[in-house]
Amino acid sequence: MNLLHTPTQPAWLTQALSHLDLILLDHAQCEKKAAGTAMRYLFQYPNHQILVEALTTLAREELQHFQMVNRHLDRRGVVWKTLKPAPYGNYLKQAIRTQEPDRLLDSMLISCLIEARSHERLELLAKHCPDQELQDFYAFLGIAEERHKHLYLDLAYEYYAAAQVEQRLHELSQKESDILQTLYPEPRVHS
Amino acid sequence: MNLLHTPTQPAWLTQALSHLDLILLDHAQCEKKAAGTAMRYLFQYPNHQILVEALTTLAREELQHFQMVNRHLDRRGVVWKTLKPAPYGNYLKQAIRTQEPDRLLDSMLISCLIEARSHERLELLAKHCPDQELQDFYAFLGIAEERHKHLYLDLAYEYYAAAQVEQRLHELSQKESDILQTLYPEPRVHS
Repeated sequence: MNLLHTPTQPAWLTQALSHLDLILLDHAQCEKKAAGTAMRYLFQYPNHQILVEALTTLAREELQHFQMVNRHLDRRGVVWKTLKPAPYGNYLKQAIRTQEPDRLLDSMLISCLIEARSHERLELLAKHCPDQELQDFYAFLGIAEERHKHLYLDLAYEYYAAAQVEQRLHELSQKESDILQTLYPEPRVHS
Repeated sequence: MNLLHTPTQPAWLTQALSHLDLILLDHAQCEKKAAGTAMRYLFQYPNHQILVEALTTLAREELQHFQMVNRHLDRRGVVWKTLKPAPYGNYLKQAIRTQEPDRLLDSMLISCLIEARSHERLELLAKHCPDQELQDFYAFLGIAEERHKHLYLDLAYEYYAAAQVEQRLHELSQKESDILQTLYPEPRVHS
């Protein structure tokens, strides 16, 4: 199942491979943000028990990945700094409708698409990255991101009718691909 | 090392033992909030590497405890509902000064005191609770809360001079005991 409307353009891979340390720094922030997002949903939907159980486990895993990325930063001697994020995340967040029940549906689908894109790009890095330890790490994480993509999609199907999920997913997936048509000049996981 | 200015009054234990299911429901929310607080610090202090490493591990553990409390709620057949929290947490949060470097010091010490109080009260429940499985669980968690109390205190000492930590801890500990002098009428972990 490919949820992404268009694949990543080759220019992103070239940019990423030339700036592996910056990608790794940004990646650490992405894992932390993924944990923060899952946790935000726990507070927004405390009575959605299936969601709470699934996203608590997810948040724990994202925090673990955050620590693992930090280990690779240490190993490569990269000095920690906070990077300005690519506009990707905020742009997608703006597509989340603010009223329920739309908000939860959009939230699950946007998170699903972000995980799907991360999965696709980490697999590209796993194939082409020159650092063998990072290759293995990206392959390991790629599998996790694929699982997370399904987890968010399953939650959408849990709470909404299939036709509604599929129609909205189609619209949001188009949007997700649109923003990536223009490569962000700074190397990022989602540039 | 007892950080608490005054011990819990017996009236709290009586109230708690008469409403174990409510205490358990509130406890679940406390664990979730503890994870959320640790995660908030990760975003507030991304460049404090020792803090980030320690609190990432802590957030993972709090999320695990949240899931464990939920298992006990399921086992006892308690239907999930969101409870209005006791004023304790917000009252203590208001004591955090808003300017750095005071804010970080106060944040670490307030979190330390909340963990210290949780430790004290979970130990009381471990001793007196009539549900054997809950007794064991509270004893297990009490040890964790004690560890977390030290973790936050260690972070305060990591970033501030000892005299400064001790003076502020003294003030905040007094404040923490003050709010508990009046028993909150609804049964809560921090009523």
